[in-house]
Order: sequence, then C-alpha cells, then structure tokens
Amino acid sequence: MFGVMRNAFERYGFQPIETPAMESLQTLTGKYGEEGDQLIFKILNNGDYLAKADSEALNSKDSKSVTPRISKKALRYDLTVPFARFVVMARNDLAFPFRRYQMQTVWRGDRPGKGRYQEFTQCDADIIGSDSVLCELDLVTLFHQVLKELGVPGFEIVLNDRRLLNALARAWGIEDRFEDFTIALDKWDKIGNEGVRLELSNRGFAPDSIESIMELFALLAHEDVHARLNGMRAMFAAGDSEALAAFEEMSELIQMASEAGVGSEHLVFDPTLARGLNYYTGAIFEVRVADAPVGSICGGGRYADLTGIFGWEGMSGVGISFGADRIYDVLDHFDAFPESVLPQAQVLIVQLDDEGRSDGLKALQGLRQVGISTVLYPDVSKLKKQMKHASDLGVQFVLMAGDEERTKGSWTVRNMQTGDQVDVKAKELTSWLKAEITG
Amino acid sequence: MFGVMRNAFERYGFQPIETPAMESLQTLTGKYGEEGDQLIFKILNNGDYLAKADSEALNSKDSKSVTPRISKKALRYDLTVPFARFVVMARNDLAFPFRRYQMQTVWRGDRPGKGRYQEFTQCDADIIGSDSVLCELDLVTLFHQVLKELGVPGFEIVLNDRRLLNALARAWGIEDRFEDFTIALDKWDKIGNEGVRLELSNRGFAPDSIESIMELFALLAHEDVHARLNGMRAMFAAGDSEALAAFEEMSELIQMASEAGVGSEHLVFDPTLARGLNYYTGAIFEVRVADAPVGSICGGGRYADLTGIFGWEGMSGVGISFGADRIYDVLDHFDAFPESVLPQAQVLIVQLDDEGRSDGLKALQGLRQVGISTVLYPDVSKLKKQMKHASDLGVQFVLMAGDEERTKGSWTVRNMQTGDQVDVKAKELTSWLKAEITG
Repeated sequence: MFGVMRNAFERYGFQPIETPAMESLQTLTGKYGEEGDQLIFKILNNGDYLAKADSEALNSKDSKSVTPRISKKALRYDLTVPFARFVVMARNDLAFPFRRYQMQTVWRGDRPGKGRYQEFTQCDADIIGSDSVLCELDLVTLFHQVLKELGVPGFEIVLNDRRLLNALARAWGIEDRFEDFTIALDKWDKIGNEGVRLELSNRGFAPDSIESIMELFALLAHEDVHARLNGMRAMFAAGDSEALAAFEEMSELIQMASEAGVGSEHLVFDPTLARGLNYYTGAIFEVRVADAPVGSICGGGRYADLTGIFGWEGMSGVGISFGADRIYDVLDHFDAFPESVLPQAQVLIVQLDDEGRSDGLKALQGLRQVGISTVLYPDVSKLKKQMKHASDLGVQFVLMAGDEERTKGSWTVRNMQTGDQVDVKAKELTSWLKAEITG
Repeated sequence: MFGVMRNAFERYGFQPIETPAMESLQTLTGKYGEEGDQLIFKILNNGDYLAKADSEALNSKDSKSVTPRISKKALRYDLTVPFARFVVMARNDLAFPFRRYQMQTVWRGDRPGKGRYQEFTQCDADIIGSDSVLCELDLVTLFHQVLKELGVPGFEIVLNDRRLLNALARAWGIEDRFEDFTIALDKWDKIGNEGVRLELSNRGFAPDSIESIMELFALLAHEDVHARLNGMRAMFAAGDSEALAAFEEMSELIQMASEAGVGSEHLVFDPTLARGLNYYTGAIFEVRVADAPVGSICGGGRYADLTGIFGWEGMSGVGISFGADRIYDVLDHFDAFPESVLPQAQVLIVQLDDEGRSDGLKALQGLRQVGISTVLYPDVSKLKKQMKHASDLGVQFVLMAGDEERTKGSWTVRNMQTGDQVDVKAKELTSWLKAEITG
C-alpha cells in the first residue's frame, strides 16, 4: 500500500521529507485546540525530572501547570505542523512552488475504536507557494490515481470551497456565526435534517437563516455536479466577486479533472461539505466510501497561511492526507486485498541428507541472485515436517534432491499449488523457476 | 538504502513485521540494564495524571518512584524486546523456523553525537527456532549482499563465538569474572594492550590470567583466519566438547561463507570480539569499516533464549541488526552515495500562455502514466522564472510550446544537462522521453 502511494507521489513530482517523531512540546501546544492539546502524547524529561518542577504545583497535584516543567518534548500529532516548521527552517533551500510528501506515524491519545487509533500512519502531499487551481487538479487526480491502484471500491472524491460557504454566510447575515454554521453542516450525516434544525435553533439561529441552510441540504437531491454548483450560485449575492471567483475555479477544476480521466462516479460536488479545521480557506476535499465501516478515508484543502504560526506569514498552499489505516480497514472490510500482499518466500529447498547441503546452498544462492525469494530448510529432518513448513510458509515450489537426483544432476521440483512434480536439470534450475514464477 | 535492504531481506525469505512505537513501560523496564532504563523515553499518562501519584513521593520530588505512577507507556528502545513480545503473542500463528525482518525507529535518551542519535532506525533480521549453523551462514551472506549493494567501502564482517570465550575463561579459571573479562576485551580498541593490562590488574585479575588474556590479543598478529582459529583452539582445554563443537561450527561457517562468495577481505575471525550484550550465547557478529568516523555499523549473534523474559523458555535463534544511520554516516564520509539518491521530478512542463494549458495537462498525464515524474508549472509566468525553477528542481528535461509549436503539433524539448533543444511531435513525446530517460 505504501509502495503504491510512494510511487504515485514521486511520479507526480513530490519530494519525500521526514521529520523526527519528537517535536518540542511548545511547537505542538495550541495548534490543535484545547481538546487536541490534551490528546498530545508528552514525553517525560529524562533524569531527575521532578527537580525542576514547582513544589506548590506538585503538592496540589496540578497536572496542567506541572506538565511544561517535566516535559519538553512530545510526539507529533499530525504531519502538518512539523511540515510548517520544516518549511520555515529550510525556506532558503527549497524551490517554490514546493511539493513534498511525507508518510510517517502520528500519535493521538484518543480512546481507540474502529477507524480511530492511538498510533497511525499519515500520508500527506502538499504543494505550497502557488495559488493556481492546477495544484488542486494535481491533488484530485492523485487521489484518483492512488485509490484506483489500491482497488478501493466505489470511492467518491467530494469537493467544496470554503469561500462559497463564506459567501452564503454573508448572504444570509450569519457571518458572525460561521463556526456554528459549519459545525451543523458537519453533523448532518449523523443527525439528519431534523437534528440540524433543532441544533441550529438551540444555538439561536433565526428561523429564516435555518430555512436558508436547509435549502442548501436540499441541493443534495441533485445528482448532477453542475445542478448542485448552479444551485449554490443562485444562493449567494450576484455581485460577490470572491464567491464568483471560487465558483469559476470549482467549475474549472471539475471540468479539468473529468478531462484527466476522473470519472463522474468518483467526483462529487457537495455544497454542504465544511471540513471542521479552521485553517482551510479555499477548496476543500474529502474522500468517502459508500457502506464503509469508517468515515472519510482522505481529506485536504487549500490554506492561505501555513507557516504564520512560525513567524512566516502568507505562505499559501494546498494539501491532502491519505488515512492509510482507514484505507486498510476499508480494503479489509470489502475483502479487496490483492492476494498475497505480504512478501513471502517463493521457494523452499528441503534437505534430505547431509550430502545434499552443498548443492542446496548452490541452488539457494543462484535463485536469490535472480531475485527469487528462497529459503533452505536449516536441518536434515523428516520430509513430512519440511513439507509442512513449506505449506505453512505458502511457498510456490519445493526443491528436493536425494541420491537419485544427484546421480542425474537434477532436482525434483514440486509445484505446491498443483501437486505436480517434475525433474529439472541443476543447470537449468534458476532459469526454469524464474520463467515459472514470473510467468 | 531502505529499499536495498528490504529487497535483500525478502529475497532471503524474511517476512516484514511492524510493532507499535509505544510499548508498556513495564515491558521495557529491566531489559537494558540500569543505564538503559534511564535512557528509555517515557510517555506521560494523559489527563489528570498526578491524581494517581503518591503525594509523599511528589512532595519529596522522588522522580524514580513517581515515574511508574505517571507513565504507563514508553517508546521502544530497540527492536529485539518488542520482537520477543510479538513472538510470544503470535506463537500459534507463526511457522518455525520463523524469519522476520523489521525496519523501524527506536528512541534512546542519549546525549546526541556522531553516530549516536536520540531517534534512529534499526533494521533487524532474525531466524528463530533453529540451531543450525546454516542460519548464521544466511545472516553472514545477507550482511555481505546488502553492504556490497549499498557500496559500503572496505567493510569487514567480524566473527567470534561466546562459547569459545567461555571455554577460555574455564581454561584460565576466571569463569566467575567472565563479565569483567569481556568488558576488558571490548575496551582494547580504545585503550590498547597497556590499558587492558592496567584495567585487569585494577580489577584484581591474577598476573597469569592477565598474561593468558594478552596472548589472546597476540593472535591478532595473524592475518589468516585459520591461524587465528587454531591459535584460539590451542588455548582451551582439549577435552572441552562445547568449545570443540563451537570451533567446528565456526570453521564450517567460514568455509561455507567463502564458498558462497564472501571474499576473505570481508570476513574476519577476531578471537577478542566479545559484544557486551549478555544474551548472546553462541556466534557473534560485528561489521566494521576501516577509517570510518563511527564504531561498528552492524552487529548480531545467537541467543539461546529470546522469549524467556515473557514466559516462554528456550526459544533460540540468531539475529543481526543494520545500523542504518551509521551506514549513512559512513557512505557520507566516503562520499560513496550514488548520485541523485533523492527522487525528484524528471520533467518540467512550462506554461508560455493560457492556450497551452490543455496541451500541457495532456502531456503531463501521458508522461506520468509511463512512470516519468513530471510537473506542470502551475502558472503562466516569465520563462526565465520557470527555467530557474526547472534548474532548482534538477529536472532533466523542460517542455515548451507556444503558438509556433502548437501549429506544428510539436513540443520544444530542452535537455537541461547539454542545453540542446529539439522538436518532438506531440504524439511521439511520451515514447521519445521514455527512451531518453531510461536510456
């Protein structure tokens, strides 16, 4: 799975970067909201760490104020903040627009559950330093490419743009309630129309604002991308130039993605997609799989300011993240794994007697040299035991040679799938097996 | 580098496993000696962690006794202990002899220095559940294969056997001082003959024991493997059957490794190699590079009991570890990196005008489809700026098309190394570039 992603990232011209698992606690604190701060795994300082802690705070067991005194480092919580730090530190060595990908573990102190892990791998790709919609296009086609290659069944790349949502909020006079508005949008999947109505009403939205918002959900009745887009356009003010620009870009993006081979069954415009994270300022993406046991498997979007938190303002870009563990869950759920994903030995050489060892070693070396994964059974044991090991390992071929074969200068080769046995000359063994295995 | 290792491990029939970065602190504590325990990075419990801590210990700032109350998890310190835990937990699903490799990060709270990192990658391969010397042979040839492929200059695979050292200690009546004996052996590199004499004398070794030990070092004057082996044999008791078996196995191992193509310049028998770790009980390995800025770059050995600490006694095996970061340092030191190790875009398509975009997108898609890493410059900007980006990226080819080319249905292709420009028909572009790039 990682091989498929790595390969696609590199064909798309993304460069790999890696950052340390441990960041300074200060770098991470305050970047993920209060809840996030609590889920960050903090590392205890080495040595006599209590020496520097405040006695009063210790006595009153005030965990919160003790933490920064006894922990200087923490495990990264995502790849975005470490990437922003990296960009600021390396800015003089990078060629902008800069494309990087990063596939590394992140840690969150969540209660573990389906699709939620304490330790999981994120696979991020970002293009920073360009406002062109071609960057969005590259990421949408990258989603399509990777998910196709992985064989993820029925995935949908869902698009929207935060600027369009902003424009609606302006048109409906709820700009100052924008966050509540997006939270309600995000909840619709779970609580439905009536739930959202109730939620909005409880949060003090006026009845006509609520009706406007419900009209937005009504657009989902249209299957057609353009019907949805135009429906949304009719909702914001005709003279809203920011929204018009976003509308044009979204139309363009959908058009170009379709020309680049992203089928309409994989590309969805959803005017109610909001993506909770506040740093998104333009296009937003999410990938969903119908009937899957997990929520979205990928996400992303455009941000106006990645590195401002580290003192370098205005570095805009767009990025996506593949949720590797969730993709794994989805493939597992649909039994969609290609057979024998796990590398395993292809050939086992059995040892029938002591005299066979040196021939066995020669065959071993020859097969490995041409890239065939081969194991020599380490002892002379009962054939039955060695054959059981071959079947446990799942090898395709077993090689055997006793007195008779040695006299003939050949090997008995057993195909474990068919049970067929053939004699193969020792000299031809490597090329014979290579042809059999690579087809 | 990791690709080379992964490929070799799999050809040798090792299966990949991964374990979580965080282990329970209890699993790790006590496995690496007192110094090791202090270097383990401990994770602070989430939430109000001080609530469960002992008030008295907090008040007296007793870090050591507070630790287990406020930290349940820790970062893995090596791959061996997590592997042992894995084997015990998965024992019913594994086919023995079991071969696994594992390439993952480990963390140690060491003071950072050359060849010593707080966060580094270990690459381990182990075969467990067999006592056959063919396992040692597989690992020695694996060292040879990987280090050759990586182009590590002048590496030496150094061999010894703990059973031979045990036999000497028996012959010299210093069995009860075995650990001091091995510590002195390990120090010889740094402090030389006189230093070792002094050290042994300070530790209360009798003068004749010291002379015997110094004779062992004298064997290093022999270049020839067999002269060293036979010299060592002459030192232990003639009737010591354990030592004789070890001697026979070592002779066999060296003979077979040589037959398998491991040149004598890469294979050294060193009767003074001790490998500090106490769990080794048979053959031990170390890989050194002459004139390198770091100590050994790989190590390993046979152990009689991997899983005893987790309640499953007597599971023996043999394993090796590649120090990836040290190998990197060595290659860096000798400037031995192959050129352009880092993946980078091979082709940049520049945008001269708005009309060119759709042709650019078509070319982009075609090139990526055949595996050529390609980037389309995201905006119509000055050619000079786009060419500078091409050169910053280090691409091999730049594609350009304006009105003239479009009329002809062709691309101007610039070879960035030679500066040559040629016209290539749009239809032939993909196959032309593929031939140029793959040679």
